[in-house]
Amino acid sequence: MGMGKITIALDAMGGDNAPKEICAGAVMACEKFGDLELVLTGDSEKIRPHLARASQSASSRLRVVHADEVVAMDEQPTLAIRKKRRSSMRLAMEMVRSGEASGCLSAGNTGAIVAGGVLVVGRLPSIDRPALGVPLPTIRRWTFLLDVGASIRSKPLNLYQYALMGNVYSKKIIGVDEPEVALLSNGTEEIKGDEAVMEARDMLAKNGSINFTGYVEGDDVPWGRADVVVCDGFMGNVILKFGEGLMQGAGTIISEEMGRRFLPKIGLLFMLPMVRALRARFDYQKYGGTPLLGVNGTVVKAHGRSKASAIFGALSAARDFIMKSGVQQIREALE
Amino acid sequence: MGMGKITIALDAMGGDNAPKEICAGAVMACEKFGDLELVLTGDSEKIRPHLARASQSASSRLRVVHADEVVAMDEQPTLAIRKKRRSSMRLAMEMVRSGEASGCLSAGNTGAIVAGGVLVVGRLPSIDRPALGVPLPTIRRWTFLLDVGASIRSKPLNLYQYALMGNVYSKKIIGVDEPEVALLSNGTEEIKGDEAVMEARDMLAKNGSINFTGYVEGDDVPWGRADVVVCDGFMGNVILKFGEGLMQGAGTIISEEMGRRFLPKIGLLFMLPMVRALRARFDYQKYGGTPLLGVNGTVVKAHGRSKASAIFGALSAARDFIMKSGVQQIREALE
Repeated sequence: MGMGKITIALDAMGGDNAPKEICAGAVMACEKFGDLELVLTGDSEKIRPHLARASQSASSRLRVVHADEVVAMDEQPTLAIRKKRRSSMRLAMEMVRSGEASGCLSAGNTGAIVAGGVLVVGRLPSIDRPALGVPLPTIRRWTFLLDVGASIRSKPLNLYQYALMGNVYSKKIIGVDEPEVALLSNGTEEIKGDEAVMEARDMLAKNGSINFTGYVEGDDVPWGRADVVVCDGFMGNVILKFGEGLMQGAGTIISEEMGRRFLPKIGLLFMLPMVRALRARFDYQKYGGTPLLGVNGTVVKAHGRSKASAIFGALSAARDFIMKSGVQQIREALE
Repeated sequence: MGMGKITIALDAMGGDNAPKEICAGAVMACEKFGDLELVLTGDSEKIRPHLARASQSASSRLRVVHADEVVAMDEQPTLAIRKKRRSSMRLAMEMVRSGEASGCLSAGNTGAIVAGGVLVVGRLPSIDRPALGVPLPTIRRWTFLLDVGASIRSKPLNLYQYALMGNVYSKKIIGVDEPEVALLSNGTEEIKGDEAVMEARDMLAKNGSINFTGYVEGDDVPWGRADVVVCDGFMGNVILKFGEGLMQGAGTIISEEMGRRFLPKIGLLFMLPMVRALRARFDYQKYGGTPLLGVNGTVVKAHGRSKASAIFGALSAARDFIMKSGVQQIREALE
């Protein structure tokens, strides 16, 4: 690591658009951030051509470490991490463990990223299970939602720990003063919730160090009625994808209707500035990074369908997390 | 019951806009359907004024049965049904049990509707737990989603029975030929799912009588990649509300942006026909009825925030369910 440099290991082979879009995002990030150094792991012959257009400055901060194996998107996660010791994903994570890199990023197999986080990078001593969190743009504010898929079902203690980690993330990384932390439930009344949620509620209510506001319901998430929303990974996974599909679907219907009608096309011309403003506000590609919280190093996941701009966004998020000592903040808060 | 008449008992005191909007919806439905007879249960003094404007024909098919108690929206459901024997909700359900009405509708306390369905109307002998289902307009087709909140967590056998009931509903009520029935999970691969979902999957795969297509993910719901989507009530409740909030939130942001900009307002004028078409396509108020499947009678729940048009929609759905012998179809399919 150079003086004042931030080194991130980037799995260049992970995701649906690897290595091309991953490399393009890497170049974008190095052009933008003069302190960023990237180590791309993967098939060097396939990677190099995509780095050719980088400026001299960026080029000097883009290294390639060859890896001959790739973890496939549908592989059994734990097995893949255990057996594919020379995979691009595992190599990136080993660089975090050894300290050669301050963090790593992959758009690959989510389960394998979580398994690698636990098996290669290692859990924080006070954490039973790590969680994937995602900052969502809502009507009122940024809401940090976790877990969105590191685990499937969670015990009360897991939900409790997610809440504490989410609180730290919201405070230290997003910069919210006294984050409102809530549990996602099927109603706001105390009698609602399944057993895990109810027990986590009791545990959180007793913790005086966070601003726990109780339950929120499904519609409170898009309205932004909390800074941190905690749920299990099965739920987080489904609602995140459901929301994605709903927004894309609405877009498709609008395009179809546009194709059938003439007047709306004229109307759209007038509306373009607004449409652009809306897109910018809800562009998930821009904030593509999903940190894996609870492991002993910076591990960030990008969406499997990430294009260059999403990789750029995720690298920015990873850099930010490192600069703000995210891992250390969580470790200290949970001790 | 008159010759060829369809009698529905309507809880006139249930929901946030009772009794006014409930009564208005009742009048609308009786004006539209000449075969519909409604028995409104509740405070007769409060109800009658809202029925004054009905035509003579509709008026002759609008009866009021006085009830002096009301189940509140936040009351403990089972207790409320057990103790409030003269509540408008319980009276409506008792009319179904006694055969005085072919079905009942309430926009009141969801838990109490489910409890009343089980305790007053009674379960079908082959069903362990009833489910609330809702037909969702999606990009490609109508998708019937259940359970959306009759239970919280479900055992594999419950999910299995929901799938069978959803299959019957899609086939006989919506009119789909060979409904594609799927389980909602956190991925489409076989290794995904929690224990309950995985076991239900095995049970459904062995049942040759339905077209079970395996898992769908969150984004498959708005895209309409199945005719029937099965999940537990906790999940169903959250994603339904999440979707509602997301669509309302998007509308709010668009209005805000409109307020700030001049050109979009001109654009909107050109787009109004399209906006209207879109609204009509996604107007949940129009399809406000959520049948409680697995009980021995027609019990339909309407959204707590229902206005007259939603009550009209839910009454239409209840009438349709009765005309198509929905309860009998489910009973026969499950025997």
